[in-house]
Amino acid sequence: MNYPSRLIEDAVSEISRLPGIGKKTALRLALHLLKREEEQTIALSEALLNMRIKTTYCAKCHNIADDALCNICSNPKRDHSIICVVVDTRDVLAIESTNQYKGLYHVLGGIISPLEGIGPSDLHIDSLISRIEHPEENEPVKEVILALSPTMEGDTTAFYLQKKLKPAGIKMSTIARGIPIGGDLEYADEITLGRSIVSRVAYD
Amino acid sequence: MNYPSRLIEDAVSEISRLPGIGKKTALRLALHLLKREEEQTIALSEALLNMRIKTTYCAKCHNIADDALCNICSNPKRDHSIICVVVDTRDVLAIESTNQYKGLYHVLGGIISPLEGIGPSDLHIDSLISRIEHPEENEPVKEVILALSPTMEGDTTAFYLQKKLKPAGIKMSTIARGIPIGGDLEYADEITLGRSIVSRVAYD
Repeated sequence: MNYPSRLIEDAVSEISRLPGIGKKTALRLALHLLKREEEQTIALSEALLNMRIKTTYCAKCHNIADDALCNICSNPKRDHSIICVVVDTRDVLAIESTNQYKGLYHVLGGIISPLEGIGPSDLHIDSLISRIEHPEENEPVKEVILALSPTMEGDTTAFYLQKKLKPAGIKMSTIARGIPIGGDLEYADEITLGRSIVSRVAYD
Repeated sequence: MNYPSRLIEDAVSEISRLPGIGKKTALRLALHLLKREEEQTIALSEALLNMRIKTTYCAKCHNIADDALCNICSNPKRDHSIICVVVDTRDVLAIESTNQYKGLYHVLGGIISPLEGIGPSDLHIDSLISRIEHPEENEPVKEVILALSPTMEGDTTAFYLQKKLKPAGIKMSTIARGIPIGGDLEYADEITLGRSIVSRVAYD
């Protein structure tokens, strides 16, 4: 496409590098910004830059943090004896929004994926082991919950972590797989339905 | 949602002000930028700022331009006696990509919409009239084509322009409405089909 200005072309090319945004959407967004007051673009541009340059990560769980420790790790009311292992910050936000978990997290920063060339050494696995083997005073870790997606990469990562953490001798668990609440048995896929029967839960 | 950092919250709130982008997508984009090298965010942020602050508009047709005149108005090979009236730069790009039009444009910068409080005085209508009434030497305007969307606002704007330009006594036309190429008669709506019969084209 022949853009009317090199400035627009540059902006469209940068916006369309974002995931899920093509050239047409990028042009729509660029023209939208051009129509609005200059302040909006300045605010957007500064917010992006500030976020990218100033954001720090929690020294303990690798979640995004404003200080040395994130607001979950530094909260004394949380249960410091349980660690929930997740792939990224979005998973932390998703679990936090359930209000069902009061322990700590450990953000791996990715998932083992041979296809994309991501191995265990690219993830925050060593620091997880160190958190379990060298716990802070009075706070030994009692349980590790693996909250990984039920994909091939998720299962591979879970399997690797199980093997790595076994010597520590602590309780390990994974989030339940099964029929979603409100889901219809009739429309569930066979693997999920099969898993929900194998992992059936006894009534108290 | 409880964002892990104020920096992320600011970025998400600014990104989600863009049209068609909600909080969840904004968070996904923000976390994507955090994962990539710093250079990508710096380039994006600078491209947006440069575009918003440095972009200028063609003094003649109000299209986006790098210089005083856009590359269409300043092109001597274009037919300067025909003006195609459009709503915004996207329409110029769309018509240009057809390679069927060799005249000039006039970008209104919006459309008459009483509901949104946009009246004729908010649009570049006066400069269109002035282009027609005071043409450059040897380049009188012979025809004005209205390329507006067939919506209520588009029709209102077209009607207003017809009335305003009538005294100039030049030829006026509108882009053809009808069955799209490759469209199926059976599935066309009644209004489009009706219009395509009324505006039938005689074989040569």
